[in-house]
Amino acid sequence: MALDYLKLNDTNSILIPADDLHKQVSAILQGVGTPEAHAEITAKILVSSSLRGVETHGVGNAVRYSESIEQGEYTVPQSVDVITETDTTALLSCGDGLGFVAAHQGMEMSIAKARKHGVGMATIRDGHHIGMVAAYPMMAVAEDMIGMAMTNASKAVRPALGARPRVGTNPIAFGAPAGEERDFIFDMATSTIASGKIALAKRLGVQMPVGWAVTAEGEPLTEPRGDRGEDWAMNPLGGTREQGSHKGYGLGLVVDILCGVLSGGGFGTQLSAGENMTWTMAIDIAKFRDVDDFKAMMDDMIRELHDTPPLPGEDRVLVAGDPEADFQEDRLANGVPVENSQYDEMRARAIQLGVEIFI
Amino acid sequence: MALDYLKLNDTNSILIPADDLHKQVSAILQGVGTPEAHAEITAKILVSSSLRGVETHGVGNAVRYSESIEQGEYTVPQSVDVITETDTTALLSCGDGLGFVAAHQGMEMSIAKARKHGVGMATIRDGHHIGMVAAYPMMAVAEDMIGMAMTNASKAVRPALGARPRVGTNPIAFGAPAGEERDFIFDMATSTIASGKIALAKRLGVQMPVGWAVTAEGEPLTEPRGDRGEDWAMNPLGGTREQGSHKGYGLGLVVDILCGVLSGGGFGTQLSAGENMTWTMAIDIAKFRDVDDFKAMMDDMIRELHDTPPLPGEDRVLVAGDPEADFQEDRLANGVPVENSQYDEMRARAIQLGVEIFI
Repeated sequence: MALDYLKLNDTNSILIPADDLHKQVSAILQGVGTPEAHAEITAKILVSSSLRGVETHGVGNAVRYSESIEQGEYTVPQSVDVITETDTTALLSCGDGLGFVAAHQGMEMSIAKARKHGVGMATIRDGHHIGMVAAYPMMAVAEDMIGMAMTNASKAVRPALGARPRVGTNPIAFGAPAGEERDFIFDMATSTIASGKIALAKRLGVQMPVGWAVTAEGEPLTEPRGDRGEDWAMNPLGGTREQGSHKGYGLGLVVDILCGVLSGGGFGTQLSAGENMTWTMAIDIAKFRDVDDFKAMMDDMIRELHDTPPLPGEDRVLVAGDPEADFQEDRLANGVPVENSQYDEMRARAIQLGVEIFI
Repeated sequence: MALDYLKLNDTNSILIPADDLHKQVSAILQGVGTPEAHAEITAKILVSSSLRGVETHGVGNAVRYSESIEQGEYTVPQSVDVITETDTTALLSCGDGLGFVAAHQGMEMSIAKARKHGVGMATIRDGHHIGMVAAYPMMAVAEDMIGMAMTNASKAVRPALGARPRVGTNPIAFGAPAGEERDFIFDMATSTIASGKIALAKRLGVQMPVGWAVTAEGEPLTEPRGDRGEDWAMNPLGGTREQGSHKGYGLGLVVDILCGVLSGGGFGTQLSAGENMTWTMAIDIAKFRDVDDFKAMMDDMIRELHDTPPLPGEDRVLVAGDPEADFQEDRLANGVPVENSQYDEMRARAIQLGVEIFI
């Protein structure tokens, strides 16, 4: 749920059709040597993020990835290798390439294993950014499965009682199919706020609310920072001891364990900025119960939640995936807003690489 | 992490050896017709909770369970039935009996399936309270596996933008083995605070901090309530929109989906007080990588976290499971504190049922 003052509008962004954005992102990535299949997977997920209103993980990142590739921070073309595998499990190496590619393959393998054996799981080392984590559970949901994915990151968040960054923002995403209602698609950073929101606040020149970050002395920090360092840290979900900061902190470590320790790729303080290990799981609902019955109960639950009287000042009660589905409906019809500076960057990068301009 | 003013001390509690508590709980449960094997499982988990300082899920609950059994709210002796099963999955019915018994069987089956196939998962319908959820992941950790368990409950928590209770406190527990360091054992309600903490505040006659609960008008509620009703609700983890209340809310629904919808047992608003559906999962680490290497990396992570400079006013940075392991060490040596009123209740109940007195 983007906060109102962080929203894009017609003064800070320009509307572009999703298909054109897809072509532009794919072209930029191919312009630095990414194989077409890998560029297409990455473009699909980046455009899906932008369509769903998740600007922080959207098409604006394509230029950054292309630079990482050019500078040799990413190995492209990459080889995604299966290190160990059983009927239900896989340990993959992302080959130090685009995180999207191995995470996509991890979830494809999870789905195939779940279809045969009930549950499928992959953990992925030697990886980079995988974008909007919800993209991977959504693949399982499209197959009438429950999907789950997590990814860890370099240190940015303080432990519950700590005053220095030691854990990544380590997001968790989960999806389950509904019937007539919209699917349940949930995606959260285990910090109070996703780090992209702080970067967005900085770009838009607005202050952060108290509770998002602290100084090394534990004092609230409201001026958004563009850097990472020992002198400030994001808060874990829960914020304070009394309000459950050990819960956001513990969830962040669950992500580190499944993504970083189970894969051997490393936990928060072992990762450099831009390194991300990933975990995916798919559960075949039909192995437990009739899928239509499952979906009918999902519908009942979602309707009951939508019918809850809202807090004073709020319009209506939402269910995870509602705001994103609203964005997607609007943006498929009217175009995707791209921040002015990111639009300029993408065009400049395309020209620099000598690839076709689509936007 | 119990808040200081909710702690038991020598004025409000009495110290009892853990073994005696185990015998007393088992005797009380057997006194109302619970088969010995089921009473022993339940006693083991209740005493483990009390040893670990999780008073709200400890031995003091034995009397309540025995009353539920006597009043026919629980079916005892119960039959735990396997409704559907594959190599990696199981749907169980708890037979409307003690939740502990089926959750224990669900995790045993998850571990056995994981040992053979990599991952094992069970979801359990027709169930009741399973106590401290961490007890089940701990079974997996003892087998060098990663364990995870969740349980849903009747409505008590408001949706993120809602003003009425619609979701249970729906806890999530996760465990992973360390090597030389203590195992990572994490257990959190998806509300700001576990509901047992509110009951404890009420029994001890103390106010709740702002942020734990609200009235139906969305105003902070600080007087602890012993009832459940539409006129107040607990807050989801995150508390407010700006601080991420949609995250605690979404996690609560993840629990409802895996426990209630996947099993068919029902979600929050479909459950009566005391009804709980449960989900368990075990992951065999050895299927992914060498277990000793995994544990060595866990040790590195835990040490790095312990070494983090603490916030001003805090002693040290903890890792999930630390406070509980400290409690357990102390209580195994010195006895388990049982609240005076609960001690009196247990003895009175034992006398009433004509079973042996051990405490």
